[in-house]
Amino acid sequence: MALLADLQAAFEPGRVVVPEHIHSRHRSDWGVALADDEQPAALVYACNAGDVSRALEICGRYDCAVVAQGGLTGLTGAATPVDGCVIVSLERMRAIEEIDTAAATMTVEAGVALERIQQAAAEAGFFFPLDRGARGSCQIGGNIATNAGGNRVLRYGMARDLVLGLEVVLADGTVVTSLNKMQKNNAGYDIKHLFIGSEGTLGIITRVVLRLFPATTSECTALCAVSDYDAVLAFLAHAKAQLGPTLSAFEVMWPDFYRLALEAHGMRPPLDENHSAYILLDTLGTDTEADQARFEDTIASALDQGLIEDAVLAQSLADSERLWTLRGLAGEFSRVFTPRIDFDISVPIGDIGVFIERAHAGLIAQWPKARVLGWGHIADSNVHLSVSIDEQPQPLEAVERTIYALVREYGGSISAEHGIGLLKKPFLDYSRSPAEIALMQRMKQALDPAGLLNPGKVL
Amino acid sequence: MALLADLQAAFEPGRVVVPEHIHSRHRSDWGVALADDEQPAALVYACNAGDVSRALEICGRYDCAVVAQGGLTGLTGAATPVDGCVIVSLERMRAIEEIDTAAATMTVEAGVALERIQQAAAEAGFFFPLDRGARGSCQIGGNIATNAGGNRVLRYGMARDLVLGLEVVLADGTVVTSLNKMQKNNAGYDIKHLFIGSEGTLGIITRVVLRLFPATTSECTALCAVSDYDAVLAFLAHAKAQLGPTLSAFEVMWPDFYRLALEAHGMRPPLDENHSAYILLDTLGTDTEADQARFEDTIASALDQGLIEDAVLAQSLADSERLWTLRGLAGEFSRVFTPRIDFDISVPIGDIGVFIERAHAGLIAQWPKARVLGWGHIADSNVHLSVSIDEQPQPLEAVERTIYALVREYGGSISAEHGIGLLKKPFLDYSRSPAEIALMQRMKQALDPAGLLNPGKVL
Repeated sequence: MALLADLQAAFEPGRVVVPEHIHSRHRSDWGVALADDEQPAALVYACNAGDVSRALEICGRYDCAVVAQGGLTGLTGAATPVDGCVIVSLERMRAIEEIDTAAATMTVEAGVALERIQQAAAEAGFFFPLDRGARGSCQIGGNIATNAGGNRVLRYGMARDLVLGLEVVLADGTVVTSLNKMQKNNAGYDIKHLFIGSEGTLGIITRVVLRLFPATTSECTALCAVSDYDAVLAFLAHAKAQLGPTLSAFEVMWPDFYRLALEAHGMRPPLDENHSAYILLDTLGTDTEADQARFEDTIASALDQGLIEDAVLAQSLADSERLWTLRGLAGEFSRVFTPRIDFDISVPIGDIGVFIERAHAGLIAQWPKARVLGWGHIADSNVHLSVSIDEQPQPLEAVERTIYALVREYGGSISAEHGIGLLKKPFLDYSRSPAEIALMQRMKQALDPAGLLNPGKVL
Repeated sequence: MALLADLQAAFEPGRVVVPEHIHSRHRSDWGVALADDEQPAALVYACNAGDVSRALEICGRYDCAVVAQGGLTGLTGAATPVDGCVIVSLERMRAIEEIDTAAATMTVEAGVALERIQQAAAEAGFFFPLDRGARGSCQIGGNIATNAGGNRVLRYGMARDLVLGLEVVLADGTVVTSLNKMQKNNAGYDIKHLFIGSEGTLGIITRVVLRLFPATTSECTALCAVSDYDAVLAFLAHAKAQLGPTLSAFEVMWPDFYRLALEAHGMRPPLDENHSAYILLDTLGTDTEADQARFEDTIASALDQGLIEDAVLAQSLADSERLWTLRGLAGEFSRVFTPRIDFDISVPIGDIGVFIERAHAGLIAQWPKARVLGWGHIADSNVHLSVSIDEQPQPLEAVERTIYALVREYGGSISAEHGIGLLKKPFLDYSRSPAEIALMQRMKQALDPAGLLNPGKVL
């Protein structure tokens, strides 16, 4: 095959893998696998932007699709290969090139694991706030290409907000090096935003400049219970006003989620099981004593004002971890809540309560024995739902249409943080207007007119 | 003229202004005026996105340039009309459409003055942090189209970071309504970033959804003096570590700036005039007593550790305003430091000290009597320089080339917060590579192939 021969001629031995030797793990991310009767044409290990550029040029000549892969921990199939494509793997680009302590930046290659970045930041006396369960295997290039979220968005923003500069290879092989290290730079269009969150469809990110933050030295955690969603909103306003920017998590769990979490972990309930919602509150600060006092005051005044019904404060790191274990239930779902259909959506904060109620009612009306778990990073508008129907297989599409119709009604998003990939593509128009989608297509057309980059994803 | 007749037929009387009746203030922003022998073809007052769309469609038929105007307070000529263009003025789009207290968002039309937004936020119990001296006349559409900065970027980010959604009219008249209210929304490409900071060259912003923040209740201010730029860096690291996210300003003034500020305001020096740099430090918080104690501790420990040589803490709001008056000297320049050439640049934080030294030396070498004032929002990498040469007229281009050559050497930006417009366009390649500029041009080509939107600006 001429394509393969060209690639092999362009790269050193061992850098181009023929189809029969491509490890099966490259066939799938955590969400979608390539069909059994399909296969990639080759896998190329890139060591720098020049390699990616060369691979793209060669693929361009053969009109061959290119799919970039990192840690393969996405949930929507964005990194799943397409039949006959060339996979460009960035996993060998693992250099932390620079930590600039004065600028508070770290420049890294795309294939560095998130956890290594967190550790390197900590060793240099900084904090890199992006975090997700897959931190040990996900890679920063993928985190940025998918605009990853996580538990600290409330305070530090999404992956997008943590990027100052990047290097990207365009579909035609052009390397655009834009490794800006400055928080302020208005010299023309801010081109990095084109690529952040575009899931490898507009370019392949090869290097990034990340923002680092001062290390925090204190953490306060509490679990609070409230009587209804209005109380969630009132308590959120109170917590934001009292705790200011130290507030780093405000995680709401609806009762079914809370009860299953207790059961799954065999935990004694830190708070009674008869409340309407549970909130895990977390602050990160730099003054242990004052922060703790402020935190306790905030909870106490919320109790006094009747905003919350009950609360338990973590007295130790172990306490805090125990409370966070409840919130971590989703990581145990394969053991305790399966089969199921998962949702990652966002809805304007004020509407989340009624949204959850209506979602529940809408599902029960169709499947009276449906089980519905709700939880999420409410303060960022993000709510997760997991639904289990007593049918086999799960009526995936009908459940999705039920939930996404409600998302559309409330002007919400069918993807808060996981992206679109393959799985959510059929529903993109539930959250985006024809004009918005046409504009996205125009971007795609401008940057990748031949449609070689990650075809069939997002749009 | 057929164009004018078509516009007049499409809009009610009074909405289309003929050239001879266009007020002279529309000929110029604060930086650049239209040449005396040139004039716009018409001015259209838009009342909504549909109006903008209609104007663009008509102009498209005649291949006529369109320049959007807001408060006309920009400094680089981005809103200055071009000869024969149609000006689309957004100043009648002054509705504050919604404040969503649960979502902490405000939806406004493009022509609302920044100060009205700040006031409306405050009345609703929130804080909208974007601020600049022209707050009374600048309009939010322009602030966002130019990605405005200001004194609170350190804590709250640039205008870009304060926008959740927008409505924009493309060059072909398509209205793209993307009024997202959620902090997390990964449903496809984040198209708003295309238009933020593009200075009206890719689309005309007609409505925006802004993020609101909890009101702050405490402010602490201090003026500190240090021995050299290394001490600036050490004190910045100390302040960030101690004050965490409450740190909202870290403004450095070099001695010549400080001395002129004292002189201009007839002030008794709050700190001796023999230090190497002066830092105005500001925090915004929610706990008056604890914040003040923390702030005093931070200054005291910096003195103990020898990071700073001297300090004065504001004991009252009046004290704080007096200290900020020093920093506000730039507003008095036309009275006390004229003629001059102004710079708004950014340089990686660690290099700013040597950058200032070399800029000074490079100017003195060519113009021994040059006066050079330096100050800036150092913690965001942003430094301002004003240069006065004892020649008339000021040798503008030679001074610019001297400074921008240094900016290029340090990988800095020729525009930190003011944008490119007309004035900085000749120097764009000092901060952006050919590949970056080509990518910007590709965006322009994709969105405005006929080049009708604000032609000649930025690129």
